[in-house]
Amino acid sequence: MKLFSSVKDVNNLQQFVDDALALKQNPFAYQSLGKNKTLGLVFLNPSLRTRLSTQKAALNLGMNVMIMNMDKEGWALETEDGVVMNGSTVEHIREAAAVMGEYCDILGLRSFPKLHSREEDYSEGLFNKFVKFCGVPVVSLESATLHPLQSFTDLITIQETWKTSSLSGRVGEGLPKVVLAWAPHVKALPQAVPNSFAEWMSRAQKEGMLDFTIAHPEGYELAEQFTDGAKINHNLEEALQGADYVYVKNWSSYKEYGKVLTYPDGWMLNNEKLSPTNSAKVMHCLPVRRDLELAAEVLDGPNSLVIQEAGNRVWAAQTVLKEMLKNS
Amino acid sequence: MKLFSSVKDVNNLQQFVDDALALKQNPFAYQSLGKNKTLGLVFLNPSLRTRLSTQKAALNLGMNVMIMNMDKEGWALETEDGVVMNGSTVEHIREAAAVMGEYCDILGLRSFPKLHSREEDYSEGLFNKFVKFCGVPVVSLESATLHPLQSFTDLITIQETWKTSSLSGRVGEGLPKVVLAWAPHVKALPQAVPNSFAEWMSRAQKEGMLDFTIAHPEGYELAEQFTDGAKINHNLEEALQGADYVYVKNWSSYKEYGKVLTYPDGWMLNNEKLSPTNSAKVMHCLPVRRDLELAAEVLDGPNSLVIQEAGNRVWAAQTVLKEMLKNS
Amino acid sequence: MKLFSSVKDVNNLQQFVDDALALKQNPFAYQSLGKNKTLGLVFLNPSLRTRLSTQKAALNLGMNVMIMNMDKEGWALETEDGVVMNGSTVEHIREAAAVMGEYCDILGLRSFPKLHSREEDYSEGLFNKFVKFCGVPVVSLESATLHPLQSFTDLITIQETWKTSSLSGRVGEGLPKVVLAWAPHVKALPQAVPNSFAEWMSRAQKEGMLDFTIAHPEGYELAEQFTDGAKINHNLEEALQGADYVYVKNWSSYKEYGKVLTYPDGWMLNNEKLSPTNSAKVMHCLPVRRDLELAAEVLDGPNSLVIQEAGNRVWAAQTVLKEMLKNS
Repeated sequence: MKLFSSVKDVNNLQQFVDDALALKQNPFAYQSLGKNKTLGLVFLNPSLRTRLSTQKAALNLGMNVMIMNMDKEGWALETEDGVVMNGSTVEHIREAAAVMGEYCDILGLRSFPKLHSREEDYSEGLFNKFVKFCGVPVVSLESATLHPLQSFTDLITIQETWKTSSLSGRVGEGLPKVVLAWAPHVKALPQAVPNSFAEWMSRAQKEGMLDFTIAHPEGYELAEQFTDGAKINHNLEEALQGADYVYVKNWSSYKEYGKVLTYPDGWMLNNEKLSPTNSAKVMHCLPVRRDLELAAEVLDGPNSLVIQEAGNRVWAAQTVLKEMLKNS
Repeated sequence: MKLFSSVKDVNNLQQFVDDALALKQNPFAYQSLGKNKTLGLVFLNPSLRTRLSTQKAALNLGMNVMIMNMDKEGWALETEDGVVMNGSTVEHIREAAAVMGEYCDILGLRSFPKLHSREEDYSEGLFNKFVKFCGVPVVSLESATLHPLQSFTDLITIQETWKTSSLSGRVGEGLPKVVLAWAPHVKALPQAVPNSFAEWMSRAQKEGMLDFTIAHPEGYELAEQFTDGAKINHNLEEALQGADYVYVKNWSSYKEYGKVLTYPDGWMLNNEKLSPTNSAKVMHCLPVRRDLELAAEVLDGPNSLVIQEAGNRVWAAQTVLKEMLKNS
Repeated sequence: MKLFSSVKDVNNLQQFVDDALALKQNPFAYQSLGKNKTLGLVFLNPSLRTRLSTQKAALNLGMNVMIMNMDKEGWALETEDGVVMNGSTVEHIREAAAVMGEYCDILGLRSFPKLHSREEDYSEGLFNKFVKFCGVPVVSLESATLHPLQSFTDLITIQETWKTSSLSGRVGEGLPKVVLAWAPHVKALPQAVPNSFAEWMSRAQKEGMLDFTIAHPEGYELAEQFTDGAKINHNLEEALQGADYVYVKNWSSYKEYGKVLTYPDGWMLNNEKLSPTNSAKVMHCLPVRRDLELAAEVLDGPNSLVIQEAGNRVWAAQTVLKEMLKNS
């Protein structure tokens, strides 16, 4: 594995999930693999879970970790080609990426969208240039449009808590019903987490691992390239019927790009709204705004998986790093 | 040991001090104890000595260390319950603490008081919630009201430089006279260091290890819960008579909470003021403002212990971490 | 080796270069040397290459690394003696340096010049006080006037890419012609990199390893203490005749201290300007502003050594740390 930025980078989805759960049982089994190898984590935006869980995953594998907070410790990066650099950017991503590739065996990059131009964000220009010029394997720590370590974690967590030991190969039997449910927020958030969740769950649905529905108010349609095969519902109550997993997440509009649109009342999940579900487990990538995105009573109740889910970020990252180390 | 936030968390004070001095002689003796264990250091406020000495202590024990500068790399934390989080805080301490507990075997937390409300600061709400929700052992790296790693260090340093190999069990013989002496400053500083020093020295006095006096101008009384048994003196010259150790520190008023009050001249320690002492050793937790809190001539002279004291922070932290690792 | 701040700290220049290239072949050969040793990296200014390459070098040697971003995580340092510290500085460098020396076996310090006063910057007051008070070996990570890890790297890179296996001992044969060429910039930059490059190349020239020329517009003369024996040319075209290596770098005026002076057109190196050279290799310390300091066509073309050069920073740092560890 030379790149992990999308579910498309994974060959065998069930095997990938099984590998992660095996690492959780035996975290230090592959320490010789990482000996004298260095992971560089490059942050153009803040991070808590991704930073700590990926660092922990690398340490479990015996790797060294070097962290670079580009926004705080470094320089403003130029990403356009053909520009005379007489403004505020002090280094081009061509050199910055290549140099970091000289010092690290694997690199991770976090870079949020600006939410100004859909074309710019969805081209993934910065991320793709970083991959192109650094010359070493790259793990996305969340890009403008996708957050694959989060979505891989989410699938691991669904497998871990589902009643059968393998989601795959159960055709004809009951599949878990997974609902991605839009939630309110006061700020305009990226679409990276829901895009990515939709991409991974659509793939899992295609492979017969689960049943996938997206619920959101009108105007909050996600980019179709990520939602192939998903059932879309503008009625939250209807969508939640019989759900086994509800994945709560706010995102800003893709159509009216980066905007916070008006929406009908009743989109914040609480215990009452959970009643028509199949005692659904509730997931969220965190950070979560209590009683705005998701009722505190749900977060503090028995249905919440959010902490277990966050903990599983380690095994997602460790599975990816292990695959990259095996190739190197 | 599951918590280190106060002298009350220590069973046998003399043994704890002796353990620290033994680690100083043999820093790498317990490296197998920390193998594959991770210490997370969470800073809500800046730190130099605490950061480096605790990191060094963990490395000496073979641990991995992950550092999280929440104020710079992370998010503003909500600490109140029942709040609709539609303002500037982006994550509740319930989730933040629990998530960090998923990634770390032991956590350290630094969080200063706001000095706005005595009730709020002295409730230690943030620190206690962090302890409650993270689910792993916690070391205080300085809280709103106490700085136990510093005070433990101070007792270690007194033992190390005193003429008898054990402070305890010398009843009837001369005990070291220790004086905590208030000093001027231009800013309103927390009471955490003097509270903590008073708490540790009062306990040590009760156990017959030393004799403890506090000198400060009127209005600068510390909270009584920490000063039990201490002699209080508003006359610095009188308090210093025959002192063996003078611990210099500024703090803001506890009574007129967080205020800098007017005070009589003559509270900055210099060589002249040291003359009635028993050639007292001078201590300070650092950072120190030269010729404002403490005369440069004292800092640069033979009585100063401040650098040795700062160095001993490693052995205090290492003793605490070793106890926590033994339990895990 | 107790100090690395100038080429004067190196006894045998050719041997030092050969050691670095041997480490590049065998990066992990000296891991027992660094076991349980700690390198502290102290940044008063931002850093990308120096931070990562020095950290990597230390990890290769089996050392632990602790990083302190003083400007962001710490305190404003006082460097003057005899000052009443009642202003904005919160700790004196005497205590800060001494304390860091308690926790680290070797320290690295980065501190840029302020470019206000030539006397202040060229006295290297802050750097020298840090060395004096910390009590452990110190590596310069770039000081007010010199950047020796960069210049050592540059000599390593020239040796690595030159046609003979040793630059020394070839008297009578063709020596590489090395040209330091001033380049335009929009900001006032320090003279540390060109001073240091001149210092190292002048020494190498004296030892018969190469031929050294400096090209710059009038008014951009470097301090003579660093340029002993160098040919100075105000005509770029003339200076580049037959060059084997062109080292491109902007710097502000030393004479009109810290000023950006007007200069004639034609000082940005491009492919056309390279034609009278001996297919010269082009070097730059990075970060570089494309099409302002140096043409993008050169950076992206076959003559550029900039990425290889940045990669070699590891071996320069590792050679220095290895020498310091051998002594300790």
